[in-house]
Amino acid sequence: MLTLDFHPTGRHFLQIPGPSPVPDRILRAMSLPTIDHRGPEFGVLGHRVLKGIGQIFQTKHPVVIYPASGTGAWEAALSNVLSPGDSVLMYETGHFASLWNKMAVRLGLKPEFLGLPGAEGWRHGVRADMIEERLKADTQHAIKAVCVVHNETSTGVTSNILAVRKAIDAAKHPALLLVDSISGLASAEYRHDEWGVDVTISGSQKGLMLPPGISFNALSPKAMEASKSAKLPKAFWAWDEIVEMNKTGYWPYTPNTNLLYGLAEACDMLLAPEHGGLEGTFARHRRWGEGVRAAVKAWGLQIQCADPAVYSPVLTGVMMPDGVDGVDADAVRRIIYERFDCSLGTGLGKVKGRMFRIGHLGDCNDLTLMGALAGCEMGLKIAGVKLAGSGVQAAMDYFGSHPAPVALQKAA
Amino acid sequence: MLTLDFHPTGRHFLQIPGPSPVPDRILRAMSLPTIDHRGPEFGVLGHRVLKGIGQIFQTKHPVVIYPASGTGAWEAALSNVLSPGDSVLMYETGHFASLWNKMAVRLGLKPEFLGLPGAEGWRHGVRADMIEERLKADTQHAIKAVCVVHNETSTGVTSNILAVRKAIDAAKHPALLLVDSISGLASAEYRHDEWGVDVTISGSQKGLMLPPGISFNALSPKAMEASKSAKLPKAFWAWDEIVEMNKTGYWPYTPNTNLLYGLAEACDMLLAPEHGGLEGTFARHRRWGEGVRAAVKAWGLQIQCADPAVYSPVLTGVMMPDGVDGVDADAVRRIIYERFDCSLGTGLGKVKGRMFRIGHLGDCNDLTLMGALAGCEMGLKIAGVKLAGSGVQAAMDYFGSHPAPVALQKAA
Amino acid sequence: MLTLDFHPTGRHFLQIPGPSPVPDRILRAMSLPTIDHRGPEFGVLGHRVLKGIGQIFQTKHPVVIYPASGTGAWEAALSNVLSPGDSVLMYETGHFASLWNKMAVRLGLKPEFLGLPGAEGWRHGVRADMIEERLKADTQHAIKAVCVVHNETSTGVTSNILAVRKAIDAAKHPALLLVDSISGLASAEYRHDEWGVDVTISGSQKGLMLPPGISFNALSPKAMEASKSAKLPKAFWAWDEIVEMNKTGYWPYTPNTNLLYGLAEACDMLLAPEHGGLEGTFARHRRWGEGVRAAVKAWGLQIQCADPAVYSPVLTGVMMPDGVDGVDADAVRRIIYERFDCSLGTGLGKVKGRMFRIGHLGDCNDLTLMGALAGCEMGLKIAGVKLAGSGVQAAMDYFGSHPAPVALQKAA
Amino acid sequence: MLTLDFHPTGRHFLQIPGPSPVPDRILRAMSLPTIDHRGPEFGVLGHRVLKGIGQIFQTKHPVVIYPASGTGAWEAALSNVLSPGDSVLMYETGHFASLWNKMAVRLGLKPEFLGLPGAEGWRHGVRADMIEERLKADTQHAIKAVCVVHNETSTGVTSNILAVRKAIDAAKHPALLLVDSISGLASAEYRHDEWGVDVTISGSQKGLMLPPGISFNALSPKAMEASKSAKLPKAFWAWDEIVEMNKTGYWPYTPNTNLLYGLAEACDMLLAPEHGGLEGTFARHRRWGEGVRAAVKAWGLQIQCADPAVYSPVLTGVMMPDGVDGVDADAVRRIIYERFDCSLGTGLGKVKGRMFRIGHLGDCNDLTLMGALAGCEMGLKIAGVKLAGSGVQAAMDYFGSHPAPVALQKAA
Repeated sequence: MLTLDFHPTGRHFLQIPGPSPVPDRILRAMSLPTIDHRGPEFGVLGHRVLKGIGQIFQTKHPVVIYPASGTGAWEAALSNVLSPGDSVLMYETGHFASLWNKMAVRLGLKPEFLGLPGAEGWRHGVRADMIEERLKADTQHAIKAVCVVHNETSTGVTSNILAVRKAIDAAKHPALLLVDSISGLASAEYRHDEWGVDVTISGSQKGLMLPPGISFNALSPKAMEASKSAKLPKAFWAWDEIVEMNKTGYWPYTPNTNLLYGLAEACDMLLAPEHGGLEGTFARHRRWGEGVRAAVKAWGLQIQCADPAVYSPVLTGVMMPDGVDGVDADAVRRIIYERFDCSLGTGLGKVKGRMFRIGHLGDCNDLTLMGALAGCEMGLKIAGVKLAGSGVQAAMDYFGSHPAPVALQKAA
Repeated sequence: MLTLDFHPTGRHFLQIPGPSPVPDRILRAMSLPTIDHRGPEFGVLGHRVLKGIGQIFQTKHPVVIYPASGTGAWEAALSNVLSPGDSVLMYETGHFASLWNKMAVRLGLKPEFLGLPGAEGWRHGVRADMIEERLKADTQHAIKAVCVVHNETSTGVTSNILAVRKAIDAAKHPALLLVDSISGLASAEYRHDEWGVDVTISGSQKGLMLPPGISFNALSPKAMEASKSAKLPKAFWAWDEIVEMNKTGYWPYTPNTNLLYGLAEACDMLLAPEHGGLEGTFARHRRWGEGVRAAVKAWGLQIQCADPAVYSPVLTGVMMPDGVDGVDADAVRRIIYERFDCSLGTGLGKVKGRMFRIGHLGDCNDLTLMGALAGCEMGLKIAGVKLAGSGVQAAMDYFGSHPAPVALQKAA
Repeated sequence: MLTLDFHPTGRHFLQIPGPSPVPDRILRAMSLPTIDHRGPEFGVLGHRVLKGIGQIFQTKHPVVIYPASGTGAWEAALSNVLSPGDSVLMYETGHFASLWNKMAVRLGLKPEFLGLPGAEGWRHGVRADMIEERLKADTQHAIKAVCVVHNETSTGVTSNILAVRKAIDAAKHPALLLVDSISGLASAEYRHDEWGVDVTISGSQKGLMLPPGISFNALSPKAMEASKSAKLPKAFWAWDEIVEMNKTGYWPYTPNTNLLYGLAEACDMLLAPEHGGLEGTFARHRRWGEGVRAAVKAWGLQIQCADPAVYSPVLTGVMMPDGVDGVDADAVRRIIYERFDCSLGTGLGKVKGRMFRIGHLGDCNDLTLMGALAGCEMGLKIAGVKLAGSGVQAAMDYFGSHPAPVALQKAA
Repeated sequence: MLTLDFHPTGRHFLQIPGPSPVPDRILRAMSLPTIDHRGPEFGVLGHRVLKGIGQIFQTKHPVVIYPASGTGAWEAALSNVLSPGDSVLMYETGHFASLWNKMAVRLGLKPEFLGLPGAEGWRHGVRADMIEERLKADTQHAIKAVCVVHNETSTGVTSNILAVRKAIDAAKHPALLLVDSISGLASAEYRHDEWGVDVTISGSQKGLMLPPGISFNALSPKAMEASKSAKLPKAFWAWDEIVEMNKTGYWPYTPNTNLLYGLAEACDMLLAPEHGGLEGTFARHRRWGEGVRAAVKAWGLQIQCADPAVYSPVLTGVMMPDGVDGVDADAVRRIIYERFDCSLGTGLGKVKGRMFRIGHLGDCNDLTLMGALAGCEMGLKIAGVKLAGSGVQAAMDYFGSHPAPVALQKAA
């Protein structure tokens, strides 16, 4: 029998920016017996999850559900609308934008990678003005797609997608808008239709509170049209057969049934009117972000995101101060893990060792965050980091004086 | 489908002094299919749990496992060794000692209820000297049993049981020693054989980390001998048939199979050598008690237990200051529950409304306690209670500077 | 980690007459986190299960729910309405009636044990005429209660409780009517109020499809009145405090919370209108009994119950033929267990080794029974028992030509 | 809350040839909390599942585990070793071979589809002689890979893979051997290294007893070498980064953690020495196939597989007789589902409506199969199909006289 926790007792604080903690309610749903994916019960399930996930993406168009983790959905988005050698404009918000760019190269596309220079560039959101300028210069419309990350998981920056849409429109450019909202969806505000996104990519293990293993492409009619002539080879990822067969509530190949059980439950939880629906979900995460940032500021440490307009409600990146001898961010993380049974996100790519990330996404609440912040504060001190003040105190001040947006549901 | 949490998201902080949070590992064990309690697999299970629970009680003598909650085990202890009209000496440590006393009356016994006067009396442990004095006065040996509570759940006082044993011995009195360690067992140090206890009563939903529904009588040879002539009617609670049949690993009537699965798992967890075994378990709870009391002191509030020698490692009672207009302890508890999704124990009996209780028993860890303390601190402030300082800060200072006694287990 | 199945693969066929297989839906409900039994969510749960269990018993009067297994509920019924030395009239339907009689003796009552002589006596239901005759002779009304078993689990005989009620009435006798329907409730038709029962005892691990550990006393106003003057000592079992506190949805002492989650789910399942409600449940069990008895008859073996009017819909006792050299019923059971991973009930008491029992209670369906009957048929042949014909064939003939009473629910 | 079973009570008989029933033990493992896939516990898990799955494939070379369902692993195998326009030789064993062929076309390969003509062709295994002949004719070695299905799930034919290997060798042809053993692995004998397979594709939801959502490519050194120069675009499916990073126990992108928990458990179950290890697993499935085929023969119906040498131990295809007026195989399946809560596999592609499939893979046992066969027999009769005799009787005769290969494990 597998033993997965090296700590003697109590519940692990999983405060990485995904996978987020899976609520018991979802784990229980996932433990329902696997059924025949060609049988009558399955069609009921299929219709239900397709309807629910559409509401989460805020779209009336098809959402393709892949029995594959999020990286696959990146590939799916590119493969369905692009052809070998196509130019695409990507924007470097951080490590995940860089990985997506690397994938585009690997698939035989020609990505151009916009962005501000150096590690400092990773502290800002997408510059819609730079995109507009670049598209205006592309008078031949060689660029087939603009690819941006909504919530950059490696930094804690949530870019303004509507601004990117407006930039493309202002440039009168026909490029498709492809957006990765793997870590943003269902925590940060997101409106696929209203914001004019052509393909939104997302995954299960963040705001949807599911284990990893299921991912999504939300489509626009324009993207579906583009997919008819796109030439990158595709079979598993091909939208056409899936969208067609989904009309009946079924899939052309074996879906991952038990994760769909979890997805049905997750949609019920996220959309529950008594908790304010999707807007209530967004409001809760905004508030948690505020509280955590209050703590970081009180410690006297820098927030990775340098622009308050694009602070992430999903996670907060915390930069290590200079001059802490021999102690990088990962050493602090290790102390917090070993001493206090709390996992934090590591610094990735350009910022490795120089920052750590606190997740406040998915199934969270005030006291869980208070526990995590206490773990951070104790761990930073043990590591010898000088703190300006108590972040825990600041977070208590914030949470104590700012009630959650939707009041406690009383028993019926 | 039952929805049991009125809060929109995150995990409830169940910080009452029992039922304590049931670890997932135990919930999973309990979900094994119910088997034939007369079949071959059951005998293996039976032997296993009987061996394990003996180690938890630190006894070589039989432990009777009842498919009934803890109140039943109180009745079992009295019914098996006493006869109608027998005199028993009980000691009033708090609300649960009072309930046990009430039960003795109801069963037709004649309990005498020792103790210090008033609510102030509930702030101290058992006075072994008073018991010794009373027994010496009972030259006719009318008193058949001395009944004391080891860890008084209503107050957070852990009495010295060995001192009571010595008092009885010093009085050269033949009375049996009956001890309620319902909330103490498997969190606070307890040694049934070494301390010369005749019957120890315990339950599942505290240190054993199980749901309520299973309870225990640990026996001594003297208690078993007494049970042969005791005259209170008993059938369900009768030790004789159970002890006899347990030799084969089975029970005379239907045991509660799925809770026994959980008990097997709980014993494995509590006795795990890599986490320091039972002594490691005790050490962890002592440390948590220290941290929580540091917080209460920093707030400038009174700890219910007035004697540091008998501070409980299981729970801490926190007294409300005088002069907080119109806000009693239960109003504070309600704020903390509604705003921060944390349950605390109410004041019971004589101290109703005047104190609340923080549980630090069972499946706990530092950050869970930090979250709970943050909830308390924010809730107290919202309620208008003036605090001398930050208890959260004090607890962080303690936990940060006092590593847990058994180091993190590294992966094999 | 506990491994409870000695077979390499597949699901065990638990065909004993209880504990019955616990549906996954109930196991999942039971794995919800244990909550504060004094908190606001608990009151909602309490009201819900108390309402549901009343519908199952078909009573408008209180049902007391004990956190204890069924044997305890026997004691509770006796203790609440009787006084030391009281005469009670019990009827020997089989092994469990005998155990209840033994308990009455142990509690200091004076039971008189009616019944037909010998093992043959165990093949018939309660003789209401004998009860009437005996009560008429008790002109002084020394008999305080009549105690009968509704569905005798050791034999597969379901007695006519309404006939017993009429017998007491015909004798114009004031004795209370106490009925054990531990294995009958929620499988065999049962109407507490309509049949004029004063106390019905039941348990969780049979028709209610729960693990063992929770049990019931359904009351009548007359029983509640009697309890006020009854003198047997009682505390844990005392109805008064429980009934009083249940009005608020709470219990005076710690209830077994997680089994109550399961009970809420069980009530939903048993009462579901789309499956015919409680009447649909009874009809399904009657049909399964018919199919199993068709098999036994085709084998040329005797059904333990000699009177078709009282065949049990819960279980069927199968008598071994004479003259099978050296092979008793338990040897056959062992073969079936070892070779085919199927548990059957053993012969108890007077019929030990001479019969085995096939459970068809709780969470069952046609093919599960067909599998179990195939296991029996193969096992009997391997053991050398000569069979007249194929019981499996007979059961298929029956089930194939008798559709289940409530049609398959179509997807909404 | 999702309700997935339209039947009122009892457990569904999921007798389709996959997804197979997921054992509770695996569902429980999958419900462990999702952990940080970059944390220390994860590395332990990673090494463990990689070791275990290698033993299941019987290979010493890398096995790539994809967080995607089986269709994805087909694409992965092709994408990693082939270039656009490459010729591949595929063999039409049935519907799944046809789908794989269709995928190859879609990916821009040039598959040649060998096979016997018509629906009759689907009743036989791969003709190694035809492959040898074709390869010998390919003197220019234009054919880059031979693709065959080990166990054809649509027909119940298990081809001889070693014979295909020998055919390639006899032709002295350098083509890679790609084998789909999605439904064969862990039920039918399979030896990746010994049989000289270059890429074996498999999935989770068949012999591995997991829900769908995880799939595999087992590699050979020759395949890994070929992947370095293959030109089909690949990123998510690319072996190189995964194989490299797996050396540390981790994955380059988010793996599906909770299914890996299940995989660790499945490996433990399948390899358990006390149940005969992998050979014991194969022997159990061979025996179940024998019993089921005995039933089909006794009914007087045709087995889809016309060649006893390649009967599948995983599933049995049952052909409907001619001349049953207006009742095709799917009508029979519907009756069995609605009346007896049993799912059977439908006829796919060329044999739609003309046959149904009985799965005997994964977590199965004798009585489950007896129940399923009884459901088939009753359903066929209700549908008006004339049967020559009782298949249920024939299966009982077989199972009763052929004990399972590994004896019951006795309690330690």
